[in-house]
Amino acid sequence: MAKKAVIAAAALAVATSGAQAQGEPERLDAAASDPAKMGWMQGSPPAADKMIRLEDLGHFTFPKTRWSFSNYRQFTRSIGVTRGDMAVVALPRAERKDIDAIHFTPLGGTQPMTWAQSLSANYTDGIVVLHRGSIIYERYFGVTTPHSQHIAFSVTKSFIGTLAASLAAEGRLDPDAPVTRYVPELAQSGFGDATVRQVMDMTTGIAFDETYTNPNADIFRHALAGGFGPRPKDYAGPEGLQAFLLTIGKKGEHGERFTYRTANTDALAWIVERVSGERIATLLEDRFWRKLGMEQDASMQIDGTGMVFGGGGLMPALRDMARFGEMMRNGGKWQGKQVVPAAAIADITKGGGKTEFAKNGAYPTLPGWSYRNQWWVSHNDHGAYSARGIHGQAIYIDPKAEMVIARFASHPMAGNVAIDPTSIPAYEALGRLLVGEKGR
Amino acid sequence: MAKKAVIAAAALAVATSGAQAQGEPERLDAAASDPAKMGWMQGSPPAADKMIRLEDLGHFTFPKTRWSFSNYRQFTRSIGVTRGDMAVVALPRAERKDIDAIHFTPLGGTQPMTWAQSLSANYTDGIVVLHRGSIIYERYFGVTTPHSQHIAFSVTKSFIGTLAASLAAEGRLDPDAPVTRYVPELAQSGFGDATVRQVMDMTTGIAFDETYTNPNADIFRHALAGGFGPRPKDYAGPEGLQAFLLTIGKKGEHGERFTYRTANTDALAWIVERVSGERIATLLEDRFWRKLGMEQDASMQIDGTGMVFGGGGLMPALRDMARFGEMMRNGGKWQGKQVVPAAAIADITKGGGKTEFAKNGAYPTLPGWSYRNQWWVSHNDHGAYSARGIHGQAIYIDPKAEMVIARFASHPMAGNVAIDPTSIPAYEALGRLLVGEKGR
Repeated sequence: MAKKAVIAAAALAVATSGAQAQGEPERLDAAASDPAKMGWMQGSPPAADKMIRLEDLGHFTFPKTRWSFSNYRQFTRSIGVTRGDMAVVALPRAERKDIDAIHFTPLGGTQPMTWAQSLSANYTDGIVVLHRGSIIYERYFGVTTPHSQHIAFSVTKSFIGTLAASLAAEGRLDPDAPVTRYVPELAQSGFGDATVRQVMDMTTGIAFDETYTNPNADIFRHALAGGFGPRPKDYAGPEGLQAFLLTIGKKGEHGERFTYRTANTDALAWIVERVSGERIATLLEDRFWRKLGMEQDASMQIDGTGMVFGGGGLMPALRDMARFGEMMRNGGKWQGKQVVPAAAIADITKGGGKTEFAKNGAYPTLPGWSYRNQWWVSHNDHGAYSARGIHGQAIYIDPKAEMVIARFASHPMAGNVAIDPTSIPAYEALGRLLVGEKGR
Repeated sequence: MAKKAVIAAAALAVATSGAQAQGEPERLDAAASDPAKMGWMQGSPPAADKMIRLEDLGHFTFPKTRWSFSNYRQFTRSIGVTRGDMAVVALPRAERKDIDAIHFTPLGGTQPMTWAQSLSANYTDGIVVLHRGSIIYERYFGVTTPHSQHIAFSVTKSFIGTLAASLAAEGRLDPDAPVTRYVPELAQSGFGDATVRQVMDMTTGIAFDETYTNPNADIFRHALAGGFGPRPKDYAGPEGLQAFLLTIGKKGEHGERFTYRTANTDALAWIVERVSGERIATLLEDRFWRKLGMEQDASMQIDGTGMVFGGGGLMPALRDMARFGEMMRNGGKWQGKQVVPAAAIADITKGGGKTEFAKNGAYPTLPGWSYRNQWWVSHNDHGAYSARGIHGQAIYIDPKAEMVIARFASHPMAGNVAIDPTSIPAYEALGRLLVGEKGR
């Protein structure tokens, strides 16, 4: 990689990692970093110190992220995922007043915290909780509103995984087939001898370095190929995500252990498009946005060739993300109609290999979990499973409690390992409350 | 301008002008250039000969434009103009079967043409006609659908002009004030001694070359500043439309004659933002999209600083463009409520200086017309007025016939001088039919 490209990638690395650099003043808390109070992008034009630009990675730099994540489409090319003409299916309201006061103990902590406190600890931008399909709790912070198309980051993966699982349940996609049956171009890449199932469950042994402190890491080559960050002037890398996937090598064996690599989802999105003969945005419209009475259009980040960023580019409204979760909770049914095959939902909720997941060792906040069809499965006594994106994006489905949580956040840290301690026990505590169980 | 920049601008010039280069094979007609049949952007990824990319100006090159104009947001950064939660106000249907057979004689022609023939002559992508608020005619072609957010190009200007006229009618904006009262930064530019009225009516004497055959023309410097075309690697020009406006000089006197220059609208958008304290996208939402029962969200092209392209960046759905026209036709009322001040509409429909317009000499298809508040006013016996964008975008309002026409098109030629001959007489003929007048 040429020198300038390395510098650009290094800048992207620092911005994306959320790591606190040496000598940096202590990071602002949620109240101090409130994006409405900080005045980002106010003024015509905004003053230099209020401006957020892709070109200097401002959209990926805390605390500007507290504004940019709610306005993400301004920093990227995108395609519409439109709701069409279906009437909005309103979510009934049955708000509860006892949720803010729920107490729980953060993972690894000793002091109790309330649900209300967790929202600022987590830099929550918006959160909605459904119980039996009714909104029992809903809050927005900063510049986020019910109309915001907030970036969902890797929550996107679970939408792609649900499409793939649906095609499998319909008999159109064979998970046991080699990926090359559907995308022959991948033969020469590290995916060449992987199965679709290994891609779906992220057990491929591809050489894809997602280490955010390494400026040459593949995750940054990926971002440059997609055009998601400013390219160095001498950029000569692949154009688009599909061209990028062809450059990925192999490292280790397929099928042995879970390793979270965004490239798997981009490969899966490619497979889904080849199998269905449709572009991903059209599938999201035809199968979800035009079927679930969504109240807002969504946007999807695309690269310079028109390919969506299946690994992390969806920008939905919060309540629509909750509607999707509610359809999942109901076994794929919505308003009495089967929207996603029941077999697809069952294949997700049963979970993946716990052994392969445990081998990874990088998920201390997720003991006993597994990964299946791009969903994170808890295997807890409520059967909870989740869609998860960096900086705190989440759909959390608790079948036993008949509960769905959708959350947007702009936590300074990218990894959910920093966010789970004050999230997962809060969600579990609310789930227990809803089924009348006592706290642990 | 450095050599590479000149080459890039020259490419943009040729692509934008729609001029047929010497030796080029005869241009495809509407049927032969049907974008659905040509298969643009089909496949995952599209084959090289089916790919449309910003980087090689494909999105601005005929016949690819027949696809890209209906999918324009994929080629630019954009901001949402969202409809919010208001219930859709459905447009009643009263479709007439006699419209396709209307005969008219094209301007400058001798042979009659039918309305139906005019649609392909004009490379129409979509057209809807309202009579007394009901849809009497609606057609879509190629890849354009009722959900397409088609680029409206300079039809955008009339939305900005209506915002400005509204602020004037509300007493918040003084058209007779110098522009520098609202945007002091413009003092050193060619706008420095102009009034707001001169900007609104495009009678400024700024030095802004919009000659598409000159690669150094300001219109290309404008596009590069906005980031709307691929920038040369050595680009060192202004960043964003507002910074660009500051580089415009003066040529001639203000107030003497109408000269159509996109920069005026960008300056007006800046003034409107300063006066209102709101960004344009928010104003479009609060005053139109969330008030008119729009059925779709719209998108608005933005530059790298978040400023909208007021001169040509709006991407609305066709029926929503018609709803806006219908509100205008009703003197600013919609569903019994005054949405735009009646005085603003009256100030638009009375028209501008016919003398200043005639001095221009560049509009043989618009004899006796004038330009007021970013609208084109016919002064014909029906009192018709129009919003007009390159390649055939239009809103045409005929008050006497109680008719509103909204049209999207992707004509190979940019200038409406090539499109008016088969459009304006067709619209006039339909207007006469609706009021029971005989043909001329």
